[in-house]
Amino acid sequence: MTENGLTKVASHTENDSYNKELVALAVQAKSRAYAPYSEFYVGAALEASSGKVYTGCNIENSSYPLSLCAERCAIAKAVSEGERHFRSIYIATDLEHEFAGPCGGCRQVLSEFGNFSVFLIKPDLSVRKHTVSELMPHAFTPKHLLMER
Amino acid sequence: MTENGLTKVASHTENDSYNKELVALAVQAKSRAYAPYSEFYVGAALEASSGKVYTGCNIENSSYPLSLCAERCAIAKAVSEGERHFRSIYIATDLEHEFAGPCGGCRQVLSEFGNFSVFLIKPDLSVRKHTVSELMPHAFTPKHLLMER
Amino acid sequence: MTENGLTKVASHTENDSYNKELVALAVQAKSRAYAPYSEFYVGAALEASSGKVYTGCNIENSSYPLSLCAERCAIAKAVSEGERHFRSIYIATDLEHEFAGPCGGCRQVLSEFGNFSVFLIKPDLSVRKHTVSELMPHAFTPKHLLMER
Amino acid sequence: MTENGLTKVASHTENDSYNKELVALAVQAKSRAYAPYSEFYVGAALEASSGKVYTGCNIENSSYPLSLCAERCAIAKAVSEGERHFRSIYIATDLEHEFAGPCGGCRQVLSEFGNFSVFLIKPDLSVRKHTVSELMPHAFTPKHLLMER
Ligand SMILES: [Zn+2]
Ligand SMILES: [Zn+2]
Ligand SMILES: [Zn+2]
Ligand SMILES: [Zn+2]
Repeated sequence: MTENGLTKVASHTENDSYNKELVALAVQAKSRAYAPYSEFYVGAALEASSGKVYTGCNIENSSYPLSLCAERCAIAKAVSEGERHFRSIYIATDLEHEFAGPCGGCRQVLSEFGNFSVFLIKPDLSVRKHTVSELMPHAFTPKHLLMER
Repeated sequence: MTENGLTKVASHTENDSYNKELVALAVQAKSRAYAPYSEFYVGAALEASSGKVYTGCNIENSSYPLSLCAERCAIAKAVSEGERHFRSIYIATDLEHEFAGPCGGCRQVLSEFGNFSVFLIKPDLSVRKHTVSELMPHAFTPKHLLMER
Repeated sequence: MTENGLTKVASHTENDSYNKELVALAVQAKSRAYAPYSEFYVGAALEASSGKVYTGCNIENSSYPLSLCAERCAIAKAVSEGERHFRSIYIATDLEHEFAGPCGGCRQVLSEFGNFSVFLIKPDLSVRKHTVSELMPHAFTPKHLLMER
Repeated sequence: MTENGLTKVASHTENDSYNKELVALAVQAKSRAYAPYSEFYVGAALEASSGKVYTGCNIENSSYPLSLCAERCAIAKAVSEGERHFRSIYIATDLEHEFAGPCGGCRQVLSEFGNFSVFLIKPDLSVRKHTVSELMPHAFTPKHLLMER
């Protein structure tokens, strides 16, 4: 446990560095979630290859299928500012006892833009590292859609 | 025709003021669209009640259902920055001969946040005004989901 | 009030015939809803031009954006059986005091397949008639996507 | 190569039996796809624990985000008929040179209903076996949404 409360989960992040500032930004973004239906609040901080960071939160809708996840919100912000390449995404939830991976919809949206690091964050600021590829084995990608048939 | 090329379509906007700067921002946002599959580029500029403006573009995905419209992209940016109330949204496409209304998914997302102006923009910068309520009569809203049953 | 409990809401359905059997099928379909998160149960009965009827219910997901509405469920069943043209859709909810229109996402999906009748049903089996076109003024349609730009 | 053209891809299905009838049903379902925009046709056959089989195809929309994948179409049909448990899903595309995994959105929808077999089918009727769990490691599931926070 470091002085500012950050800890590493050894089995996954032992040799993987993560950025405490991005952890803090993801947690902070969670506070802006519009989630009156699930009351499940999620925040994300997306680091583009440009070095810029885009934060996102989940935005629900009274018609559930029109809701948007925090991860996709962050991607929307970044892509609409011209970004197309990413280094990492940090995802914070209120789940205390388990690291929740991103939903499949978000995995699909992340993998549209290649492979990069995915850091999951618990309320105690412990962090677990994954990658987009690891979370989406045998992904359906732009290559497949455009492949000759 | 004004000096900067803006025109009004009389039947719809005669007494409705629109903001030329927001028209320009929506058109400009269109250039950032990630739409390799449809090549249908859309830009949006969303004016929050705070006075701040958030722009968005469409962001497609090789799995089409995971795509995001420009309007929802702009909403995502605004809501994730803490905005919950809006004055107007401006939507620009490349359709020269017709004003295309927003898709139903976007109408649902817009109406989650109440009623406000919707300005449609053609490439010649002509503008047509609608409102969220007009585009979503008998809307399904938060009130319905939370209503006693 | 008819003998089997069906009533008409005069202002909307006065001269509009609706099919009591389809009302019953929509209500019945509601009982199969998988809606553990919202507990908002919806059923739909979709009448194709072939004369066949396809029922649907809402199917939620722990990641809300991956949920599916009852109306789109019915469309999925019909289209996957080869149907492309429709006469009417009947939509039943548990809302007692108001007719809830379909969400915008469903309006978009219905309008992909043209214009037809939309009957909203309350638990007391009262019915209100709309049309897809009326619920989606200035719709974004296949024509727009394929239009020359 | 068996007499009816079915083959197994050794590395994945060596000890895994698959059902030739379900392979044929998935391929057949593909022919009903409504995919005028991508012209990427997908068929699915979903085997419920009841023993009944539900087929599905992709159903696109002029607003891409409102499209539906074949896998989710099959799930919609099954769930709306009362099914909640599944044995396997078979997915057929026109991709000749690669097995395309389901998109992330579909992985999320499949995993809502537990773990079961996922068979990918090429046009030459070769088959590769996966499982929902294998395709969605560290899945976000109902358990997480309902977990105490
Ligand atoms: Zn997600
Ligand atoms: Zn839209
Ligand atoms: Zn709907
Ligand atoms: Zn899919």
